[in-house]
Amino acid sequence: MPPKTAISPTRADDYPEWYQQVIRAADLAENSPVRGCMVIKPWGYQLWENIQRALDDMFKATGHQNAYFPLFIPMSFLEKEAEHVEGFAKECAVVTHHRLEPDPNGGLRPAGKLEEPLIVRPTSETIIGATYAKWVQSYRDLPILINQWANVVRWEMRTRMFLRTAEFLWQEGHTVHATAEEAISETEQMVEVYRDFAENWMAMPVIVGSKTPLERFPGAVETLSIEAMMQDRKALQAGTSHFLGQNFSKAQEIKFQSVTGDIEYAWTTSWGVSTRLIGALIMTHSDDDGLVLPPRLAPSHVVIQPIYKDDSRAEVMAYVESLRDELAAQTFAGAPVRVVIDDRDIRGGEKKWYHVKRGVPIRLEVGPKDMAADSVFCGIRNQPKSVGVSRQEIVATIGEKLATLQQELFDAALLLRESNTVTIKNEADFRDYFASTDDDKIQGGFAHCHFADEDSLQPLLKELKVTIRCIPREHNTTPGTCFLTGKPAAKMAVFAKAY
Amino acid sequence: MPPKTAISPTRADDYPEWYQQVIRAADLAENSPVRGCMVIKPWGYQLWENIQRALDDMFKATGHQNAYFPLFIPMSFLEKEAEHVEGFAKECAVVTHHRLEPDPNGGLRPAGKLEEPLIVRPTSETIIGATYAKWVQSYRDLPILINQWANVVRWEMRTRMFLRTAEFLWQEGHTVHATAEEAISETEQMVEVYRDFAENWMAMPVIVGSKTPLERFPGAVETLSIEAMMQDRKALQAGTSHFLGQNFSKAQEIKFQSVTGDIEYAWTTSWGVSTRLIGALIMTHSDDDGLVLPPRLAPSHVVIQPIYKDDSRAEVMAYVESLRDELAAQTFAGAPVRVVIDDRDIRGGEKKWYHVKRGVPIRLEVGPKDMAADSVFCGIRNQPKSVGVSRQEIVATIGEKLATLQQELFDAALLLRESNTVTIKNEADFRDYFASTDDDKIQGGFAHCHFADEDSLQPLLKELKVTIRCIPREHNTTPGTCFLTGKPAAKMAVFAKAY
Repeated sequence: MPPKTAISPTRADDYPEWYQQVIRAADLAENSPVRGCMVIKPWGYQLWENIQRALDDMFKATGHQNAYFPLFIPMSFLEKEAEHVEGFAKECAVVTHHRLEPDPNGGLRPAGKLEEPLIVRPTSETIIGATYAKWVQSYRDLPILINQWANVVRWEMRTRMFLRTAEFLWQEGHTVHATAEEAISETEQMVEVYRDFAENWMAMPVIVGSKTPLERFPGAVETLSIEAMMQDRKALQAGTSHFLGQNFSKAQEIKFQSVTGDIEYAWTTSWGVSTRLIGALIMTHSDDDGLVLPPRLAPSHVVIQPIYKDDSRAEVMAYVESLRDELAAQTFAGAPVRVVIDDRDIRGGEKKWYHVKRGVPIRLEVGPKDMAADSVFCGIRNQPKSVGVSRQEIVATIGEKLATLQQELFDAALLLRESNTVTIKNEADFRDYFASTDDDKIQGGFAHCHFADEDSLQPLLKELKVTIRCIPREHNTTPGTCFLTGKPAAKMAVFAKAY
Repeated sequence: MPPKTAISPTRADDYPEWYQQVIRAADLAENSPVRGCMVIKPWGYQLWENIQRALDDMFKATGHQNAYFPLFIPMSFLEKEAEHVEGFAKECAVVTHHRLEPDPNGGLRPAGKLEEPLIVRPTSETIIGATYAKWVQSYRDLPILINQWANVVRWEMRTRMFLRTAEFLWQEGHTVHATAEEAISETEQMVEVYRDFAENWMAMPVIVGSKTPLERFPGAVETLSIEAMMQDRKALQAGTSHFLGQNFSKAQEIKFQSVTGDIEYAWTTSWGVSTRLIGALIMTHSDDDGLVLPPRLAPSHVVIQPIYKDDSRAEVMAYVESLRDELAAQTFAGAPVRVVIDDRDIRGGEKKWYHVKRGVPIRLEVGPKDMAADSVFCGIRNQPKSVGVSRQEIVATIGEKLATLQQELFDAALLLRESNTVTIKNEADFRDYFASTDDDKIQGGFAHCHFADEDSLQPLLKELKVTIRCIPREHNTTPGTCFLTGKPAAKMAVFAKAY
């Protein structure tokens, strides 16, 4: 008989359903009454707040400031950049009226038709660009280095919480530069910020690379991305940084007078990550008992569960309160350890699983017997069993235990990726590797393959539901031959099924 | 000849235009290409970030957590609470389509009509209530204490930056309680948080009171508000806290099983403040030279302007950098002093006025002569002249100087309010006090008047464009007679023209 797990089904049984059940068990989010939109519940939102705080500090340390631009984009703005409208017009929320009035048949109906429909922003290049065109006159006005934290809407037909929702929360950086070199350097700097955040905060190893032309952001000259492997071996694009060249500045007339007095079009970039990161985090670390949180992003690092009967309550509570204060005076990753006491009047087992499922990194149970021995019963989220630890030791080593857990989560994710990455040199092996067309089975992984021409691969990729994730920046200098056509190929790309 | 001011026109000349010019000169925001929506620029957004941070800490200290609910509300949800739909259906953005397609006549047109139109949230009682109805089963699930930071849209016809815009940023708290007493206590607690924030962070004295029935939030049983006096003596409602009774829980079926096993409707509240606070802050403190910021909310407390020629640059910069480090090691209001050096290569006078207009609390100029005397030239934003201060003294007193400025701004605003507040006992005096119907003239102020019946006052109030701001909670226990009808009146209200 298999050991009982807190989450049913398990990853092996039904990965997509396991994902939904982890979200439910950890109380992160739920579907809302509005199609495709989710409610982010307090535990999930605290995770987003921690992600925001860490990234925002990194953006400011690299010279960016925050600002806020309108939610609505006039329809005509979207028409200006040809590829961009092609990419976003198909899935947007369109505001056509500005009032409701009583419907003679009962209820309400839209009224006050707008002269020009407004689009709820799917991304803000066009509306922000129109504003930048007014701000930029001279090279002295450059660079503009601005980020926005906002909600955006893309009318997706098939949605999945955090991974693909009609409305989602994100940040979008939009910068303007006097030279192509400076804009390219910004694009590269920001994808490196994302890599740093993914690896050192989320404990999620990523591959940094360039998107191929067919996979680029609509209107971009180059798109850099970070790509992570989930536990079902699918790829997830976790952040993108776009060099937009002069495409948007020409469409929007962002011009400046250069040092030499010439009028030139500016060079722009944009870059973003979203609440999708929470989906990535869930699928990178969680197990069949629920959510597993990397300590640096966990809303609480440690939860203490006092165990008492009516007559021992005061004594146990005094003990755990002083323990909490001692632990909270310790540091992890340069910040105070975050400790809470859960003294709710519910069964101990139920309380334990509540915190296991929510991914709390370290649980400490303390009852009269532990007090007598001056010890605690310590459960670390990635360890199968709790163990007794002296009070002195847990206080002295709490920061180290959190750091070890952070590192072990990264190492486990990296091992999974490396164990499921192959180099493929011909079509037969490629077909074999990505054989199943059942999206919900754990299969395949990352395949590094030389390829000559993206277009010629499309029939095969569509057939197998495989995509080119990126051309990795590292260890990718040896030419070879295309796995499909046998033609000479300068670069390898990472191929995978993807979210 | 009047002294020259940095802002033209002055407050006395044209108050509404002065307000727009302060926003422009301080680089806080600008109108966007989307009707009624503004762009919040980095200096304005930093102010909002500081407001958010302070309030968010206060919300968490009173037991609230953040969450996030959908931007869209199905039209049918709005129909459920009769007063609420009446209040909000008249001015909302309605999404009717989810796609754009090429228009045969050129350009694009909306396509993919939705079965049910969606409203962009003007406030979220209905969508959040629908979710709470699923969360609440038993008294054990209560209270729910949640806040949301979000954007909302109200299709206002006449807009003014920060004060009234189609889209604005705000927070909305939504709580659910088992008893009326607990919900009322929450309503009162949150208006007190707003008073505390307005007075101690914004340096803006406010009157806390109850709204009369005609002025309540649509659907509320009681609305508490904080009301401030602007420098043109008009009132501005800066925050509201609503006791919603069981109105929304009945409309949305938020029911729970009580301790005794009965099924009861829950009691709800909601409370909010918005980017309107920035408008209030501008109009409370700013002068004819531009923005004046209360130090606790200022993005920078101190700006140091080095003055040098090419040959003295290195020496002066070394001096101001060490001065910056010493100042930044001091504290104000429990946090480090925020100091920046402005070494841009622009004229000293231009640089000075740049920071004056942006409201930086303290400016320090340092050139070779000051260095030789080991002193700085110190300008405090509410003082007419800069003065020389020894380096030792400025470091030792910087926190105190900021605290003094914070207090002086509060005192000045309180004095303005007290100097422009009267008690009125008859119609003739009331008419005289609010005589002018020209909205843009500085006139009137706050009038405390006994009144018997709100409805009977309406013709007079409409004629004079005066509103009842609130029934203040304090010093309001002596009955009297209605200033208009002479009937017995239990309470006084504050009457004023208002934003």
